[in-house]
Amino acid sequence: MRRAAPSIPLAHLPPAGPPIAAGSVQRWLDLTGPRASPSPMSDAISPLATPFPALPAIAGVTPHIVRAGYKDWGRCDLTYIELAQGTAVAGVFTKNVCCSAEVDLGRANIVQGRARALVVNAGNSNAFTGYRGREAVEQIMDQVAGRLGCAREQVFVSSTGVIGVPLPKDKARAGIDAALEAAPCGWEDAARTIGTTDTFPKGVAAFAMIGEVKVSFSAIIKGSGMIAPDMATMLGYVFTDAAVSPEFLQQCLSAANLATFSCITVDSDTSTSDTVLAFATGAAGNAPLTSADSPGADAFSAALADVCRQLAHLVVKDGEGAQKFIEIAVSGAVSDESARKVGLAIANSPLVKTAIAGEDANWGRVVMAVGKAGEPADRDRLSIGFGGIWAAREGQPLADYDEAPVAAHLKGREVSLEVDLGLGEGRATVWTCDLTHGYISINADYRS
Amino acid sequence: MRRAAPSIPLAHLPPAGPPIAAGSVQRWLDLTGPRASPSPMSDAISPLATPFPALPAIAGVTPHIVRAGYKDWGRCDLTYIELAQGTAVAGVFTKNVCCSAEVDLGRANIVQGRARALVVNAGNSNAFTGYRGREAVEQIMDQVAGRLGCAREQVFVSSTGVIGVPLPKDKARAGIDAALEAAPCGWEDAARTIGTTDTFPKGVAAFAMIGEVKVSFSAIIKGSGMIAPDMATMLGYVFTDAAVSPEFLQQCLSAANLATFSCITVDSDTSTSDTVLAFATGAAGNAPLTSADSPGADAFSAALADVCRQLAHLVVKDGEGAQKFIEIAVSGAVSDESARKVGLAIANSPLVKTAIAGEDANWGRVVMAVGKAGEPADRDRLSIGFGGIWAAREGQPLADYDEAPVAAHLKGREVSLEVDLGLGEGRATVWTCDLTHGYISINADYRS
Repeated sequence: MRRAAPSIPLAHLPPAGPPIAAGSVQRWLDLTGPRASPSPMSDAISPLATPFPALPAIAGVTPHIVRAGYKDWGRCDLTYIELAQGTAVAGVFTKNVCCSAEVDLGRANIVQGRARALVVNAGNSNAFTGYRGREAVEQIMDQVAGRLGCAREQVFVSSTGVIGVPLPKDKARAGIDAALEAAPCGWEDAARTIGTTDTFPKGVAAFAMIGEVKVSFSAIIKGSGMIAPDMATMLGYVFTDAAVSPEFLQQCLSAANLATFSCITVDSDTSTSDTVLAFATGAAGNAPLTSADSPGADAFSAALADVCRQLAHLVVKDGEGAQKFIEIAVSGAVSDESARKVGLAIANSPLVKTAIAGEDANWGRVVMAVGKAGEPADRDRLSIGFGGIWAAREGQPLADYDEAPVAAHLKGREVSLEVDLGLGEGRATVWTCDLTHGYISINADYRS
Repeated sequence: MRRAAPSIPLAHLPPAGPPIAAGSVQRWLDLTGPRASPSPMSDAISPLATPFPALPAIAGVTPHIVRAGYKDWGRCDLTYIELAQGTAVAGVFTKNVCCSAEVDLGRANIVQGRARALVVNAGNSNAFTGYRGREAVEQIMDQVAGRLGCAREQVFVSSTGVIGVPLPKDKARAGIDAALEAAPCGWEDAARTIGTTDTFPKGVAAFAMIGEVKVSFSAIIKGSGMIAPDMATMLGYVFTDAAVSPEFLQQCLSAANLATFSCITVDSDTSTSDTVLAFATGAAGNAPLTSADSPGADAFSAALADVCRQLAHLVVKDGEGAQKFIEIAVSGAVSDESARKVGLAIANSPLVKTAIAGEDANWGRVVMAVGKAGEPADRDRLSIGFGGIWAAREGQPLADYDEAPVAAHLKGREVSLEVDLGLGEGRATVWTCDLTHGYISINADYRS
């Protein structure tokens, strides 16, 4: 992993933990399946990994990391991000009905629209832990709110990792105490610290002009397995210095989510903890955006959508066992939503995913996946292509189909698949990765 | 593979093909993924395989097998089963909207309720082949109907194997010609001949008393991958000498299907060709069954359901890469249908399936799967057990949970998982297999 230069120069950078994947993971009950030694995948970095980019500092946003010791590991596992007064917040959360207390409380607290702090615990998802889990989250909220002098509803908490073990209150309390005293850290350290089974830290930067004012975005995300977001993906956080009302921020985030996090899948399994939050400090000093009619609103929402799309792609590129990044473009559906469902049916098909792993242009399996999606489709109007080359048109294999360029395309790290249903104007693009021995190794090849 | 003695003594048994899995399979476009050499799985027989049982001869049912040569292989690949005049027929078919012409025609023809012949082609599914595929099926129907002097609607055709290649009419014509002259064969040969990537032939026998009359059932099925029947599974055929009206036969089959084929999954991928047909010749001479009120109807429908359940289990036991047979019992749901959906969400979860492959009682992944099912569930009422031992009750891990007996249970070939949602009286049982390196090897580890 190439490390970019720290984006925020700091005097007292806490020691970064070891590579995320190398942590000593308590694998029994780990939600996403650890890369615990001696699995051969243990320390492998995804072949689709990209270097961590230089993220801009966002005025009003100050990250810190510490080691709470939620697990018996040497790495930092608590991220505390302080936010300036008046920061607007918006969020989307998992639709998994067995969600964690963090998600329950976050969903309730997002309504008032303002945030002063974000706390992310790694190594323990605190899900399926009953009232004890909820008490631990409320303790963190109260502790931070007491220190900052804000309402507890302005403190957002996420946790990721082992399920079924209540977050230990004593470790959380000591961790927060330490975080409140810790020196600020860089974005890459924060991105590493929120990760669990991730093989590389993931961040995205963007800029937008609102009138004459340049606003900045820095965003981090974690996620590798249990990725089939129904409304959001694992844990993602977008920070911007733009001045935006909470309502319009939510509107932009919800719209972006539909075309990004809701269009990716690694393994069809929807996590209990999925959360994406967007925070806007307003420090850039632009004329506040309050609706789609505000000057500059288009540029802002486009930049936010672009950040979300890039974050979503990074999660797929760190998909468990991924060797190939797959883009599936569906057109000709009866509606955009229908196209998205067809795309996800293809993206979730183990037979399609293994065919691509095998570099096999097996469009028969794509036909099957289209047909099982439960959406309108007509076998005799269906066209399927790979890398921009049609293999079948209108329900039949092409007579002059040349497999050679398709085979060459499939050997690459990035594979595209085009499906035209021939029914209407609906279209959608979804993204996934292939299904390989790596996925099985990560999730099955270990013992308690 | 232990071979049972032929159930029907025959003078002129055609040579049985080599083991089904060893056929020379044209792997490009093969629907279900071949076990083509040099994959290490090529000739492996499922560790869950059971010996082929002795199936009774059914008066009025005469199977034959021949080699049509749909592929360049030495084995027989066309099964022709002649049925006595007046045989009642019922069927359930895939809900995949990209289904084959065979399914389209079968669904249309089942309405008139009578059958004189069944033809099963192996090695070519004839799906996604447009008008040419349909013409090939109609040619077979006309050819057989002409010979038997029956309506073409009484000839049922199924095909399984490669997608996107029209069934060659010349080979089909010659094959049917040969089949019409061939000596009858035994059930095991028929079961082998309808198979493609199956690793063992699958058959089930049953008996029922209708009044003083004993009626018999012989049934065969094929299927290994692309198994997530929405209404039926791959290709299954039940033959009985009972006298039953087509309407009541359909009623019994549809009911049995709901609790059997619709409750299994191997890989969540629903085939384009799934078909289950039941044929009743009436030769046993019982008082005809015409409704649930007919004397003996209960015994008949119970026996038919039992046959379907056993057939469904055999398909799971030949699931691609399967090392363990998994039974998932869901109770406490708001309805039986809701319980079935929750069960299938668990059964289709790659993270649950890999955990069981790894012999890991990872109930956290079960919680996740329950929560993503889209059905009513309450995290704090949920209980989860393995092998009859609760690991978590009412939303929390058991304080005195003893993992040792659970770990021992998970080491076996048959694993049970119990989920109580704590909401209502709805219950369902579903069956699946684990997800292993074998599945990836079968479906990805080859090149064109």
